[in-house]
Amino acid sequence: MGRVAIVGIGHSKFGKRSDASLRELAFEAYSSALDDAELESPAIDGSVVCSATHYDKQRSPAGVVSEYLGLSPKPTFNVEAACASSAVGLRIAWSLISSRLHDVIAVVGVQKMTELSSGEIQELMGRAGDVMWESPFGTSMPAYYAMYANAHMAKYGTTEEDMALVTVKNRKYGAKNPQAMFQKPITAEEVLSSRPVAKPLKLYDCCANADGAACLIVASSEKAKKITDKPVWVAGLGLASSPMSLAGRRGPLTSFEVTKNAARSAYEMARLNPTDVDVAEVHDSFSITEILNYEDLGFARPGKGTKLLKSKETELGGKIPVNIDGGLISKGHPVGATGASQLTCLVHQLRKEAGDVQVDGAKIGLAQNIGGIGMYCSVAVLRS
Amino acid sequence: MGRVAIVGIGHSKFGKRSDASLRELAFEAYSSALDDAELESPAIDGSVVCSATHYDKQRSPAGVVSEYLGLSPKPTFNVEAACASSAVGLRIAWSLISSRLHDVIAVVGVQKMTELSSGEIQELMGRAGDVMWESPFGTSMPAYYAMYANAHMAKYGTTEEDMALVTVKNRKYGAKNPQAMFQKPITAEEVLSSRPVAKPLKLYDCCANADGAACLIVASSEKAKKITDKPVWVAGLGLASSPMSLAGRRGPLTSFEVTKNAARSAYEMARLNPTDVDVAEVHDSFSITEILNYEDLGFARPGKGTKLLKSKETELGGKIPVNIDGGLISKGHPVGATGASQLTCLVHQLRKEAGDVQVDGAKIGLAQNIGGIGMYCSVAVLRS
Repeated sequence: MGRVAIVGIGHSKFGKRSDASLRELAFEAYSSALDDAELESPAIDGSVVCSATHYDKQRSPAGVVSEYLGLSPKPTFNVEAACASSAVGLRIAWSLISSRLHDVIAVVGVQKMTELSSGEIQELMGRAGDVMWESPFGTSMPAYYAMYANAHMAKYGTTEEDMALVTVKNRKYGAKNPQAMFQKPITAEEVLSSRPVAKPLKLYDCCANADGAACLIVASSEKAKKITDKPVWVAGLGLASSPMSLAGRRGPLTSFEVTKNAARSAYEMARLNPTDVDVAEVHDSFSITEILNYEDLGFARPGKGTKLLKSKETELGGKIPVNIDGGLISKGHPVGATGASQLTCLVHQLRKEAGDVQVDGAKIGLAQNIGGIGMYCSVAVLRS
Repeated sequence: MGRVAIVGIGHSKFGKRSDASLRELAFEAYSSALDDAELESPAIDGSVVCSATHYDKQRSPAGVVSEYLGLSPKPTFNVEAACASSAVGLRIAWSLISSRLHDVIAVVGVQKMTELSSGEIQELMGRAGDVMWESPFGTSMPAYYAMYANAHMAKYGTTEEDMALVTVKNRKYGAKNPQAMFQKPITAEEVLSSRPVAKPLKLYDCCANADGAACLIVASSEKAKKITDKPVWVAGLGLASSPMSLAGRRGPLTSFEVTKNAARSAYEMARLNPTDVDVAEVHDSFSITEILNYEDLGFARPGKGTKLLKSKETELGGKIPVNIDGGLISKGHPVGATGASQLTCLVHQLRKEAGDVQVDGAKIGLAQNIGGIGMYCSVAVLRS
């Protein structure tokens, strides 16, 4: 099993990007990643293009994206796992490199969503769930996560005020991230008085649909050492799936088994424990999700996620700073790009380039990315 | 670089399968593959689900398919490359195993197309091409390949009668394949008098949209030896991409550069030449494509594909039997399943289980699978 490193990162501005098409967003992130790695396209021997389907007219986008990046006739791969697409893309790139089929791969997460109406997006998101037994009955993404929120509230006494604190924390850090969609802090009162979406979730408990791209240049150990003196190593990778339908064999909705399974694999591969993690990016598609993730990743015991949050241990200066790039709640969630965006943040941290939000002595970073309503979860552990 | 083998194969009936949903088709192929390998689901540690997008309402199908196959909570991957989806799926599985991240992977190619109208399918197929510069102008898949046919006719004097012979040959063998959509031989006169689709291509020059699934159980060398005494080894894998737009930087339409590039990599990895291949499956989406493929794979010199065909060297008993399971022209083309279907045929041959159509002494098999209008091509070389 060869060692694999991230040697370059790029990130477009996330948000409503009427100025750029899918391929142009991909190029923005890819060209920044090349600059960051001080490489040119001939050094890249393949691409993994990660984009959730149907949001854009372009089917099978790897072909057109690879061409636009100047990478034809090199191999290219479409890899998709709903909201976890580019996190799974890293696993594929890791394998392609570790198996010695490729040496240097560009993982490009890209999504263009904002040309669709919110209603169209909700319908499409539902269809990433089970179209036979669930989405025809009108389930939407916020409705799914609202059920988790209600279950957690009922079992552990979590409150709407607790959830609002996730948004307050993440928007505070989002204000420092020039690539974020929302760069303005928000108060708990504003969250609590925002319009209802799916009880108990309100507008500001939810991340926003966005356009954007993020790119990782991933290389074999031999290549990485030649390319950069600051490689960030992929130490652990975990991936798990889950039954799609909540009505099926999911078990209690107070946690995501899929996260626990993915985390177990990732910690095992990295030979680490949750307490070893210095900085984390977790999937805050909704405020409640971040609280569940604390527990499922082992940062807090079951039911103790809100306590960890309220103790400020997940803020800068705390034991385990989480989403200090603003998270999905500030950055927006261009679904195919989100996994790579999280990893980009960790790379900044582990290279000690995070400026204002640098975690002192950060050596181990963890990114957790949920696909759809928990049918996939990826956990990646990076090490400087 | 570990050795990787195919240890089990399964194949559903291809055709209009109103009796089965996407997940049920996947199960049909997967359960036959398990039976073939004499395995049960716990032995499988992940799945690669290959399905071109938009033909079915289900987005991100790996989740629901993996659940239906009884493989949750194991990792699952959506891998897509238009008509070459499950061929690329084999490359991903090879890497996942060769990198030691997984030991035994089920590659499931599956597609459900026939609930859409032919017009809807043509529109979707166009959108696997470039939606910015080409598909809005009305290009359809037959129109694309017709341009190749016209170019080959103009340069090399290939005739409609020559092309008809591809269909006649493939339908002759399709008549012996119980899984094929069309199991009736056809005459050259019937092909030539069938209705025009895109000049010079007529109805019987074209493969048909279909529903179906095919599955490969792929394993590491250590596992393969425990599972079976007839492993079929993956000896070479080539993958290339191409500019999407014909109007772009494709070069002359008398051959597919993308096939030549993929073939070069596959032969190099397998340390073989075209003359070493005993039996081949090539992408006969249209009759003309098979003729181009002979040339691009090195079975015939440029412009000599029709000569090879007319000499009957690509029939059973010839130097290099091609598509003797009937090809896409007989089997139908459920796009996500086609790559795995081709490999299934080769495994039968290399295991000497092909009955009526067994190629004497077959040891090396090659499968070539084009994605879309040549934006991807995969070439795999198998060895008994």
